[in-house]
Amino acid sequence: MKVFILITGSEFVNGLKLEKNSLFIAREAFERGLEVNGIGIVGDNLYQIQFFIKMALDKSDIVIVSGGLGGTTDDITREAIQEAIGVHLIFDKEWLEKIKSTLKQQGREITDEIKKMAKLPYGSKKIENPVGKAVGFIKVLDDVKKAIVAVPGVPSEMKPMVKKAFDLLGFKEKKKKSHIFRTFGIPELEVDELLKDIDGIILNSSPKGVDIFVTDKEPFFLENKVKVIRERIGKYIYTEDNREMEEVVGKILKEKGLTLSTAESSTGGLIVSRLINVPGSSSYVMSGIVSYSNETKTKILGVKEETLKKYGAVSEQVAKEMVEGVRKLSKTDIAVSDTGIAGPTGATEEKPLGLHYIGYSDGNKTEVHKVIFKGQRNDVRLFVSQYALNLIRINLR
Amino acid sequence: MKVFILITGSEFVNGLKLEKNSLFIAREAFERGLEVNGIGIVGDNLYQIQFFIKMALDKSDIVIVSGGLGGTTDDITREAIQEAIGVHLIFDKEWLEKIKSTLKQQGREITDEIKKMAKLPYGSKKIENPVGKAVGFIKVLDDVKKAIVAVPGVPSEMKPMVKKAFDLLGFKEKKKKSHIFRTFGIPELEVDELLKDIDGIILNSSPKGVDIFVTDKEPFFLENKVKVIRERIGKYIYTEDNREMEEVVGKILKEKGLTLSTAESSTGGLIVSRLINVPGSSSYVMSGIVSYSNETKTKILGVKEETLKKYGAVSEQVAKEMVEGVRKLSKTDIAVSDTGIAGPTGATEEKPLGLHYIGYSDGNKTEVHKVIFKGQRNDVRLFVSQYALNLIRINLR
Repeated sequence: MKVFILITGSEFVNGLKLEKNSLFIAREAFERGLEVNGIGIVGDNLYQIQFFIKMALDKSDIVIVSGGLGGTTDDITREAIQEAIGVHLIFDKEWLEKIKSTLKQQGREITDEIKKMAKLPYGSKKIENPVGKAVGFIKVLDDVKKAIVAVPGVPSEMKPMVKKAFDLLGFKEKKKKSHIFRTFGIPELEVDELLKDIDGIILNSSPKGVDIFVTDKEPFFLENKVKVIRERIGKYIYTEDNREMEEVVGKILKEKGLTLSTAESSTGGLIVSRLINVPGSSSYVMSGIVSYSNETKTKILGVKEETLKKYGAVSEQVAKEMVEGVRKLSKTDIAVSDTGIAGPTGATEEKPLGLHYIGYSDGNKTEVHKVIFKGQRNDVRLFVSQYALNLIRINLR
Repeated sequence: MKVFILITGSEFVNGLKLEKNSLFIAREAFERGLEVNGIGIVGDNLYQIQFFIKMALDKSDIVIVSGGLGGTTDDITREAIQEAIGVHLIFDKEWLEKIKSTLKQQGREITDEIKKMAKLPYGSKKIENPVGKAVGFIKVLDDVKKAIVAVPGVPSEMKPMVKKAFDLLGFKEKKKKSHIFRTFGIPELEVDELLKDIDGIILNSSPKGVDIFVTDKEPFFLENKVKVIRERIGKYIYTEDNREMEEVVGKILKEKGLTLSTAESSTGGLIVSRLINVPGSSSYVMSGIVSYSNETKTKILGVKEETLKKYGAVSEQVAKEMVEGVRKLSKTDIAVSDTGIAGPTGATEEKPLGLHYIGYSDGNKTEVHKVIFKGQRNDVRLFVSQYALNLIRINLR
């Protein structure tokens, strides 16, 4: 079964906004064993949307349209579908009543614009909107055995409605035919070399590491591939559940009942901010000190002035005093620190752009790692934060 | 002139990776006065790419293909174009020599796979790759007066090559027919109401505020619209240069020679991390204290234990003592603080989810703002960080 995804919105074709809905829909289709054979993005233009719907129906078995179901004049997906497949629109009375009663509770009257959001093509199956007013639908074209699905563009509405649509179309169970490994600490070329005899692998590289996506139509073969990959590069894998490093580290800290503090210079709060992204982190993240100035390093963290003078702020010794200082100050089990040159300026002959010292301390020991990562400022900072989080993971595992 | 953008890559249709190149290309086209009438995304499949190229050539005057020009077996854009327009591929000898000499310097030999990257359709104009080995090209189809452009998918290669292609096609000058306002502190519905008599406006809402995009084909009318908008909602506008709030605030701090520190609880380092994203921020960001635990609030920031006991951590009083504490500790001119309930848990009857107190202090005065923002944890945190940065902007302007 082939799926075509059509996204509507002038903001996307004018280059004003990054389109993200197609990623979710494509992933959902893929996991349910369907093949996405194309994605189209068009502006809010009746003719263009119609053209794409016809083309997509011609190419694919299921066409999913996201966007253009709201109550403004720009919302013309219903009309475009009406024209493209030649079927008239009717009100879903039940949904209309629901909108009316919601409005009544808010002391508002219904308008023609709002009414529009309860319309769907004759003979289609309604997909209820769990969040907003715009109703979605599935229209099956019996003669050609194809289906067109329409859902709003607002992500919080689109996501559950797309899932519901796939369920209603009979693609209920997720056919797990893929597996994700996320790794850190091994270059993409090396992963490629180590896994070159395995087919159906896609590598994705970023400052956060190399993600390995493995697919196979047969669960048995997939399981075999997964085992082989685990054997070859197991120690670099930080998750097989597609989680972020901060979630992995958070889980370990929570399970072991350990507390954490950070002393960040180059990453400027990125490490602690990533950790605090995780719900429940207040039970293990105690404090984070961003010591961008030398004064903060000495006054708050207790880095010695002579250390700064002798070795400079970007040095192994300062990373060590920072991590030990914050651990003591915050009275936590674990601490990490970093100091470095993220760029674009600040490099010297001895201390190149991208040079960083990353510290880890847990009471039994303190270790400082020296790394050089070349790249744009924010990529460098992301890499360093990932490195520090990974250091915690490795030390506690 | 109509432009169609075609992106190739199985990782996009399988839902493995967010596609971002089309945003850049669409923006570039838009700013040069061209109309993008569609974006297509297809997997690395010869038939699908061919189909889209033909369809796009039918619909549009310029087709820009990004991706699939590298040296692996998945890279089949050249072959797809060859088939779609019926022209054979030849080696660009000059480019081939360039690749050879680069490899020679690295002590490597050329292979057939690498050689492929110097191929282009007969009669096309080469677009040199300033970063990598894959050459791009423009092939003009004289009979139909249309053009097909091919560039690699690697963003650092794609971006300059797309600009070059537009230049070579004669769309050199940017015809500024649009203007961006970024606002904070006014809801989208209110902006919509205030500007409803002006056409050609697109609003984009996020926790960072409402972005207003204004367009007009005539510079004179555009300038008029811009003036009217400035008059009506000027005080909410934080940039007209499409910058981030942290850049705007950073610039003000730098110009005034002021220093800053932060004491963050709910935002967990997001404020300081955003500020440090800006190159040169080391001259004004001194320190940031992430005081997630009560102990950190009292021990490091000097919040009184009785204040915590009497009012609770999420209170006006604690926000006040935090901001004054960090300012004193860090000896900075300005400080901001926050404490709140980002969710998903932690709410009580008196203190609902999303409740935050945001503090600002500059020596002359301390003020604390109470806000409630409903949303997902990370949206709430983003909103609060934006609010705090905006507080600095407002107070220093």
